[in-house]
Amino acid sequence: MGWKAVLAILVFALAAQPADEEAAIRQVMTRQQEAWNRGDIPGFMAGYENSPNTTFVGKDVTRGYQPVLERYVKRYPTREAMGELTFSELEIHPMGNGHAWAIGRFTLKRTAAGGGDATGRFTLVFKKTKAGWKVILDHTS
Amino acid sequence: MGWKAVLAILVFALAAQPADEEAAIRQVMTRQQEAWNRGDIPGFMAGYENSPNTTFVGKDVTRGYQPVLERYVKRYPTREAMGELTFSELEIHPMGNGHAWAIGRFTLKRTAAGGGDATGRFTLVFKKTKAGWKVILDHTS
Repeated sequence: MGWKAVLAILVFALAAQPADEEAAIRQVMTRQQEAWNRGDIPGFMAGYENSPNTTFVGKDVTRGYQPVLERYVKRYPTREAMGELTFSELEIHPMGNGHAWAIGRFTLKRTAAGGGDATGRFTLVFKKTKAGWKVILDHTS
Repeated sequence: MGWKAVLAILVFALAAQPADEEAAIRQVMTRQQEAWNRGDIPGFMAGYENSPNTTFVGKDVTRGYQPVLERYVKRYPTREAMGELTFSELEIHPMGNGHAWAIGRFTLKRTAAGGGDATGRFTLVFKKTKAGWKVILDHTS
């Protein structure tokens, strides 16, 4: 293979395709929403990287895929507490090098017994892994 | 220039130097803290990219360097309301391609008249610009 071919491959590999990346990340979030709305927290968690470094920032910092999953299970123990999740005001900003940041709003439609309606804002950092785009950081407030 | 020289330059340019990047970002934040603590909001704002896309996520989303600056001036109108700022629990994660994310805690030591002590968590996305590392996204809660 000549250097021109190497260069061509390199240029192709480095070429950002932000629209494709944005669509792929939107799909991850749509799947998270669908999983949540069928009461499937492990399915929802499939949107996060399965790594001990996966980080959730709320009032406290929760570190690691498994602790983040357990936090969700503890805070949303029943179908009623989970309610109906909608993501909105979503913006996705690819940064190149297989990373993107996103901001948006979550809304939970819930019965009074489930805790009542809830809403807030989130910032996510996504990384493109072998298993697809995954959340590595979630700051929700 | 031969292809070996081009390749050498490319490899050098692509080589991540995460420790250097982390130190440079820490310095930006130290300067922000110092500016705040001398009552200098424009100096504090020098840590943010001077761009209409610079984004602050709090209860609402504020977009653009100037609106973010105005938000700080409005919320912290006096030296006493600004208080003494400390950043702590700081973690910096370079992502390659001139971007990094950071999380940490802010604490304001203030008189009762200044609004009393305050603390919270932040997530920042930094971008390496010609003017150095700058915050392009700040989610504070």
